[in-house]
Amino acid sequence: MAKMNKVRMGMVGGGEGAFIGAVHRHALALDGQIELVCGAFSRDEGNNQRTADALGLEQNRAYPSWEALLKAEQTLPESERMQVLIIVTPNHLHVPISIAAVEAGFHVFCEKPAAISLEEASRLKTTLENSSALYGLAHTYLGYPMVWQAQHMVSSGALGGIRKVYVEYPQGWLSANEENHNKQASWRTDPAQSGGSGCMGDIGTHAFGLVEFVLGQQVTSLCADLQTHVEGRRLDDDGAALIRTDGGASGVLIASQVCAGEENALKIRVYGDKGGIEWQQMEPNSIVYRPIGEPYRVLRAGMGQPGLCQEASDRCRTPAGHPEGYLEAMANLYRYFAKAVKAADADDASYHANELGKAAGVPGIDSGIRGMAFIDAMLASSDSEVKWHDVPSTYR
Amino acid sequence: MAKMNKVRMGMVGGGEGAFIGAVHRHALALDGQIELVCGAFSRDEGNNQRTADALGLEQNRAYPSWEALLKAEQTLPESERMQVLIIVTPNHLHVPISIAAVEAGFHVFCEKPAAISLEEASRLKTTLENSSALYGLAHTYLGYPMVWQAQHMVSSGALGGIRKVYVEYPQGWLSANEENHNKQASWRTDPAQSGGSGCMGDIGTHAFGLVEFVLGQQVTSLCADLQTHVEGRRLDDDGAALIRTDGGASGVLIASQVCAGEENALKIRVYGDKGGIEWQQMEPNSIVYRPIGEPYRVLRAGMGQPGLCQEASDRCRTPAGHPEGYLEAMANLYRYFAKAVKAADADDASYHANELGKAAGVPGIDSGIRGMAFIDAMLASSDSEVKWHDVPSTYR
Amino acid sequence: MAKMNKVRMGMVGGGEGAFIGAVHRHALALDGQIELVCGAFSRDEGNNQRTADALGLEQNRAYPSWEALLKAEQTLPESERMQVLIIVTPNHLHVPISIAAVEAGFHVFCEKPAAISLEEASRLKTTLENSSALYGLAHTYLGYPMVWQAQHMVSSGALGGIRKVYVEYPQGWLSANEENHNKQASWRTDPAQSGGSGCMGDIGTHAFGLVEFVLGQQVTSLCADLQTHVEGRRLDDDGAALIRTDGGASGVLIASQVCAGEENALKIRVYGDKGGIEWQQMEPNSIVYRPIGEPYRVLRAGMGQPGLCQEASDRCRTPAGHPEGYLEAMANLYRYFAKAVKAADADDASYHANELGKAAGVPGIDSGIRGMAFIDAMLASSDSEVKWHDVPSTYR
Amino acid sequence: MAKMNKVRMGMVGGGEGAFIGAVHRHALALDGQIELVCGAFSRDEGNNQRTADALGLEQNRAYPSWEALLKAEQTLPESERMQVLIIVTPNHLHVPISIAAVEAGFHVFCEKPAAISLEEASRLKTTLENSSALYGLAHTYLGYPMVWQAQHMVSSGALGGIRKVYVEYPQGWLSANEENHNKQASWRTDPAQSGGSGCMGDIGTHAFGLVEFVLGQQVTSLCADLQTHVEGRRLDDDGAALIRTDGGASGVLIASQVCAGEENALKIRVYGDKGGIEWQQMEPNSIVYRPIGEPYRVLRAGMGQPGLCQEASDRCRTPAGHPEGYLEAMANLYRYFAKAVKAADADDASYHANELGKAAGVPGIDSGIRGMAFIDAMLASSDSEVKWHDVPSTYR
Repeated sequence: MAKMNKVRMGMVGGGEGAFIGAVHRHALALDGQIELVCGAFSRDEGNNQRTADALGLEQNRAYPSWEALLKAEQTLPESERMQVLIIVTPNHLHVPISIAAVEAGFHVFCEKPAAISLEEASRLKTTLENSSALYGLAHTYLGYPMVWQAQHMVSSGALGGIRKVYVEYPQGWLSANEENHNKQASWRTDPAQSGGSGCMGDIGTHAFGLVEFVLGQQVTSLCADLQTHVEGRRLDDDGAALIRTDGGASGVLIASQVCAGEENALKIRVYGDKGGIEWQQMEPNSIVYRPIGEPYRVLRAGMGQPGLCQEASDRCRTPAGHPEGYLEAMANLYRYFAKAVKAADADDASYHANELGKAAGVPGIDSGIRGMAFIDAMLASSDSEVKWHDVPSTYR
Repeated sequence: MAKMNKVRMGMVGGGEGAFIGAVHRHALALDGQIELVCGAFSRDEGNNQRTADALGLEQNRAYPSWEALLKAEQTLPESERMQVLIIVTPNHLHVPISIAAVEAGFHVFCEKPAAISLEEASRLKTTLENSSALYGLAHTYLGYPMVWQAQHMVSSGALGGIRKVYVEYPQGWLSANEENHNKQASWRTDPAQSGGSGCMGDIGTHAFGLVEFVLGQQVTSLCADLQTHVEGRRLDDDGAALIRTDGGASGVLIASQVCAGEENALKIRVYGDKGGIEWQQMEPNSIVYRPIGEPYRVLRAGMGQPGLCQEASDRCRTPAGHPEGYLEAMANLYRYFAKAVKAADADDASYHANELGKAAGVPGIDSGIRGMAFIDAMLASSDSEVKWHDVPSTYR
Repeated sequence: MAKMNKVRMGMVGGGEGAFIGAVHRHALALDGQIELVCGAFSRDEGNNQRTADALGLEQNRAYPSWEALLKAEQTLPESERMQVLIIVTPNHLHVPISIAAVEAGFHVFCEKPAAISLEEASRLKTTLENSSALYGLAHTYLGYPMVWQAQHMVSSGALGGIRKVYVEYPQGWLSANEENHNKQASWRTDPAQSGGSGCMGDIGTHAFGLVEFVLGQQVTSLCADLQTHVEGRRLDDDGAALIRTDGGASGVLIASQVCAGEENALKIRVYGDKGGIEWQQMEPNSIVYRPIGEPYRVLRAGMGQPGLCQEASDRCRTPAGHPEGYLEAMANLYRYFAKAVKAADADDASYHANELGKAAGVPGIDSGIRGMAFIDAMLASSDSEVKWHDVPSTYR
Repeated sequence: MAKMNKVRMGMVGGGEGAFIGAVHRHALALDGQIELVCGAFSRDEGNNQRTADALGLEQNRAYPSWEALLKAEQTLPESERMQVLIIVTPNHLHVPISIAAVEAGFHVFCEKPAAISLEEASRLKTTLENSSALYGLAHTYLGYPMVWQAQHMVSSGALGGIRKVYVEYPQGWLSANEENHNKQASWRTDPAQSGGSGCMGDIGTHAFGLVEFVLGQQVTSLCADLQTHVEGRRLDDDGAALIRTDGGASGVLIASQVCAGEENALKIRVYGDKGGIEWQQMEPNSIVYRPIGEPYRVLRAGMGQPGLCQEASDRCRTPAGHPEGYLEAMANLYRYFAKAVKAADADDASYHANELGKAAGVPGIDSGIRGMAFIDAMLASSDSEVKWHDVPSTYR
């Protein structure tokens, strides 16, 4: 029997040896508000069962395939059955499974990217619009408290009119070729599984999503130079672009997986006419804030810390100086998604007052569509001799 | 019905508004191996019930008192009943509840300090020696991967013979008086609830435990200067000591809660005749390693990171550059404690080959006793005109 | 009487209130090998005389104009007269004065940029080729020991084949308009005095020069977006470019003077297939070195520090941990320039074996020409709809 | 002929291979206000002459001994002769030479420590009181702008009542024995040349002087543990002390030369009831300021930087972001000493209004006496079984 009050989730993908599945499981568990009740973790029967056992699932809820999972869970009593399907498969399955799950009456929480093409993402959006399902996208970095603080400092006008944004995401783990790596590398650099882009799809979209979230502006045009540095690799492993936004800001986006020795150094800097800010994922609990004409300050995450906006404070679990990190950031997405699911499934009036299909505090399908538009624009721009390439602004 | 394979725990203390109870619940949940099945969270009935409801506990397992909890849980079928009692009450209740729980047949995982006096801690040790219960002490900082790495670098001889150790733990939250603070401050500075020491008991023991763990040596003598800076406060809020160890090292221990503006800046530095290391809790994923005659290096936490020992690697959940923090450190204590409980309750032979009453990878009652001996020595030394004060070395 | 053994220098510009003149005087004095013997510091007679007095110059060697200075110094006995003219005027005078000084038989050390156009710089080069004068250009950042170390790590192959270079130079001091600023700002944003570019000429050239120096490669093409953010300003105050080099590297160059709150944050990162490095001007005594598959290291400046190349060691005056900075970096340029002047004026055979007109260890006219080519390419690219713009590679 | 307006100095010690002599020469030259006119650099005639030649001294002003120097310079015309004698010999000669120089009518600027015993320092003080000579002591760290800023923040009450001070000065260069080192190490660890203490005299005095300067308080009692870690070494190479001041503050002083891998990591932290500050010599251009209840701030050195006091601003030569360092700090001592010498030798009335024998902005003999008292107290305390040892407070 499932625990009272907990939101029941199932998972597709994430068997033994898959990095991101375990991350999702840590994250959903952290607040004790979600229970993983079923899964189709691997096509490999042994792996699937071992994963289910290790997780303490009920015997008959480790399914051999996502199709079987959807079919069986639909038949369970409402108080038992899965409410949300978590999708942590390779990219090319994200949309097919998402659509099937939504059509089967489930909410979906999907690892990014939402899709492998803009067309596919748009199709999913249409499906969502015709359903009452909630859809969450694991843009994990948007779960960090200080990313919300950054967004607040822009939207509240503390920085004045925004002039510049620099975002960079250097990694080094693909500096050598895939043969030296694990399965993480191989599917990510396989066009059939990961879509038309390697690095831009994998991490460029994070950088792009961070820019649009923090600025509350859309990138309207860009000029990109994508490259593939390792012999035999079929997708981009590196790139950069000049960017311009509909709010009059301009800047640079860098994403690379061949920056030898770099770990996961996502960083954003925003400058307005009154001040600037800087946030780095690898030290996520600080924002450097530089108001013009004053000594610079460091805003710090933590319960009850001075200077934090509500959205940032609400995303902290510990007092100042007790570092929170990546798992807590993803757990924040799960927390807000679970809250929305509870309200939706309880047919809560306040929930219906909100935007349908959108869990407050969690990136949704529109973020996914923006990501696809970004990848398309980067690929097209990189191949073009024309300087500026438009990023369609019709979405959102 | 409890989930298969999960270790079942109950909690005393930790109702609404209590910081550390929530931290324990996040930590125990993180790996999905533990289920919180019951609790006596607050003497306040409403608080108690609301806490239980928010946690999704079964109706009848929110008990009005720890006594009721122990009595009722004993009567449940073995497959249902709590295996481990988590104690997160004010300090003066730690030993009475621990002893009662052990005598009722439960394992105990206790927030630190283990006791409010050395005598009390010794009594608990005797109780444990006469039982088959496991006892874990939440010296959270000993759950950090890089603290294990530090210990490894000392024990493996990488630093050579150890000469110096500097540990410091500055906080600033008690810079003003209690009236300006929440209930955290008030019980911690009340001798009746927290024991004979304020700052030394609250954070000095962490600093001390870190020194002895990393060095694998015992502090044999110290010379302390404790102070109380805020008018009306009844316990020390600050202090420092010169220390010497049985391994020939010497150094300084600083712990203060009136370092205005400091968050939770626990830091340790160790220097041997071949090199030195430095670790800071607020950036817990790095160790600065300075081998003599070479550029200094920074060892970084993360799955598969170069240069890490097994104990450090095993305590990482994410790859390089995805920061883990305080909750993950405590979750590591829970992970190893749950593993030991599973083995013990399964009457696992390999478990019995281990030290009884000791969960590998988790501080136990001996750490608690060391902490009490440290507090006693600090208090006595601070009151004395004699320079060096012995810390008894009979334990462990 | 001038001191024996010291190289005698004169200065044009640098009267009271001029920042860079004082910097040059500190730098030339630091090693005690150079004596400032004359100057034409300001067109304002009072300023000129007060500056000369404050510097302890002989009465009759404060000249009313650079023309007067050149004329008078030529007539002095060889053992007395100025050997080197330092030019720290606004940019548009750099070449006219340089040519006149060279034609009058003096060596020249010039604040950057060398010129205000490529044509002008080329004319100066021709003049230099027809003389025996030495010409030094104050690309101060190339005086830092760790910049030479960076160059060494690239040229020695420690990083493997170079893939990526990111250089950035954010400043914030032009975030508000000139009326709020001093004379520094006003002439730098006046096309007549500073040339066709503001930010790119002022600091972009530093970033560009750093890239070409460290990589030992030339930038062959770029794609730029220059902007002017402050109303009424006539020159660019901000920009960025995608860049590609003749060695197969690519990357990004950022230079901006409207990054509110930033001080002088020049930074370069270089990644090859074996490792990466990072250097920042504001903490100039460290290089972060990330070899693939090993913990990262920090190489530190200082006499006798492990891991430094000869060129880096030779540029340190103090042991490890005694920070050196910007003045010491410029003093290094003066030290090497003075050494070359001594050899040249002594008709030293070993000097003649070197490249004529080039002081070893000091940027010369070719660096100046590269800078002009860079500015031209940035301006042209920013105005163009075509993506890639060539930077001519004929020089050097 | 000496330059007009420049203060004429001579130097004892500092021949080829001596570190600190070269540092002094860089520092005195930096501002162009001082001319080195004579010296007795080495007892070795060749070394002495080569040093003089490299410095461009007049032929006959390289003297074979300090006695010869004093005798000869006295006979020169007032406009030519040395005004200040700089002493950079081993410690045991500091006082004999200082007294002789003062008695011969010269001002003295002396490398620290002032003396090798409190008695010797007191004798020098008496000599100074009976003369009109100025005496400056090279406590170089008191030349840093941000040390003055720290002092200002304490004295202005920004931190409130001072509770805690932690000062630490870890170095690692004496981790191995002297045979592996240069002459720097050998005389510093020879009691006959360096006095009764090694580490405390060499660097402990810096830490101590920094505490008293920043706090504007005197240390009244301490409890020390000194050690010698390297076999065969005759003086302490390491130590720490608990300290208390006459202003009610308490804290810890650490100084060690066996902290393997550390460079020159002098650091001070001060906490009052309103906030705290932190300054580190290896990043000397920043002060971290933590006001209670607000995000922490970083004050930055530089001309015109916000938030700096006059004393700090006046000691900066460059704008924000152009790092200044150790040589600039010492140059600040020389700048203020030269200014006082000019006034004194011009019989300036405003100078006489000041404290005789004391150059404003430069540590004098009282600092030297405090240093000796500190060393005596540390040695006595370390040998004693009594906890607290008084530091005499009669001086100053």
